[in-house]
Amino acid sequence: VAILGPGLLGGSIALALRERAVPVSLWGRRQEVVQEALAGGFAPFASTDLAAVVAGADLIVLCTPIGSMPALARQMLGVISPETLVTDVGSAKGGVVEALGSIFEGRARFVGSHPMAGSEQTGLKFARADLFAGAVCIVTPEPRSQPQAVAEISAFWESLGALVRQTTPEAHDRQIALVSHFPHLLAATLVEMVAAEDPGAFEFCGPGFRDTTRVASGPPPMWTEILLANRQAVRKSTEAMIEKLREIAKMLDSDPPEKAMHHFLTQAKAQRDCLRLPR
Amino acid sequence: VAILGPGLLGGSIALALRERAVPVSLWGRRQEVVQEALAGGFAPFASTDLAAVVAGADLIVLCTPIGSMPALARQMLGVISPETLVTDVGSAKGGVVEALGSIFEGRARFVGSHPMAGSEQTGLKFARADLFAGAVCIVTPEPRSQPQAVAEISAFWESLGALVRQTTPEAHDRQIALVSHFPHLLAATLVEMVAAEDPGAFEFCGPGFRDTTRVASGPPPMWTEILLANRQAVRKSTEAMIEKLREIAKMLDSDPPEKAMHHFLTQAKAQRDCLRLPR
Repeated sequence: VAILGPGLLGGSIALALRERAVPVSLWGRRQEVVQEALAGGFAPFASTDLAAVVAGADLIVLCTPIGSMPALARQMLGVISPETLVTDVGSAKGGVVEALGSIFEGRARFVGSHPMAGSEQTGLKFARADLFAGAVCIVTPEPRSQPQAVAEISAFWESLGALVRQTTPEAHDRQIALVSHFPHLLAATLVEMVAAEDPGAFEFCGPGFRDTTRVASGPPPMWTEILLANRQAVRKSTEAMIEKLREIAKMLDSDPPEKAMHHFLTQAKAQRDCLRLPR
Repeated sequence: VAILGPGLLGGSIALALRERAVPVSLWGRRQEVVQEALAGGFAPFASTDLAAVVAGADLIVLCTPIGSMPALARQMLGVISPETLVTDVGSAKGGVVEALGSIFEGRARFVGSHPMAGSEQTGLKFARADLFAGAVCIVTPEPRSQPQAVAEISAFWESLGALVRQTTPEAHDRQIALVSHFPHLLAATLVEMVAAEDPGAFEFCGPGFRDTTRVASGPPPMWTEILLANRQAVRKSTEAMIEKLREIAKMLDSDPPEKAMHHFLTQAKAQRDCLRLPR
């Protein structure tokens, strides 16, 4: 297995495969990260030389920022075979899967993936062999994907302990906007709202604020890319949230508001309590 | 120390005091909870008889829902002395401190408190002796509060490991609306927004959605009371958030949005990363 981009996800895949005695090679853009990966025992072979890393691999996993995936994909075309399996771990799928699917058509067997196991923490030092254990991993075939390739990619994630779900790239983006992309933006917006209203309030942060805003500490370049790759759906979620908050404001203005508020909080709690959440 | 209301906070205070060999008595409204507290060793004495529990106590800590505090306070007037220290752990302070301050004026030394150590988990079974270790506890004196009483209440929380901050009940409510009350409502609203837009998206919840919405699993009756006790400030935060989300929508519509989005996420991350957050 060749892993391109040794960050939190790439590093965790490497550690999980090491535990399973699967031979891994790692590609990193910077020599410094390649050295760190080698020193940390993430893989017996790691290099900044893409051809050397992907040559002979049965499976290539793209774990770089989504914006750099198409260029990397094109660079490896000369070294891979039509039988090579390729997947990626990008958080937005529509544009990425379309681009990679076209580049690899007839040149490799590509199927997109999205393991829901990220964190606000980034880099090799947070990588864990069990990062995918119990995590949902969404596999996003296109009509042109080979069923056999889809089955092999699914089996790969299942071998790392993930719960595989399958959906189209378009449905993925619509639904992930709701439970991941927009909530990220919402957490950042909450921090900025408090900063604008009264930064003195930050003195009083409890565990609630810590958790509600945790994802706002994620890497801005990565999240800028993700949010804008799924701009339309994120925009729609923003509008839906404004609408819901207007209803909340109306509820707070109603007289008396007790019954409506209790009903609203009870529904939200019931809804959340029945979700299957990670760990 | 007499603790009224053996839930998560009351139970945790009892356990922390047991560790410090401070004698504790517990009052509960229901015989069932009193039995649970006795069986769990939370206190050597627990009862549904308020007078029996508070008689002779140097410090009384009200840990019941805020709505029931004034009635309890009036019931104990015959048994306490003007030297008795009284505090509460209510999440909203303006109305509560005003009501309790008036009831206890000349009858006991009352100072309000708010330990920022709650959770979506409730009840004795989640109580922990170290719940307050490193947690912020806000002490909210009024002009009529005795400085000596304020110092004693502060020292009490510090003895449990809390970091004590002091502010007025009014400033407390304005600031806690921003970092606790409104974020609670926002988490519930996010759950309900997703439920309304596409409940199928709940299949794909990752650690981000789990944490962003955790507080929405808190007890609806308690949170209805808190949110409405601080209705005006929560209303103001709701309006401020709608305004911020409108700016976000505008940012998503701008062309190109990359620079503004990256700047926004960078600011939010920088702001959050420098907060002193619990644990």
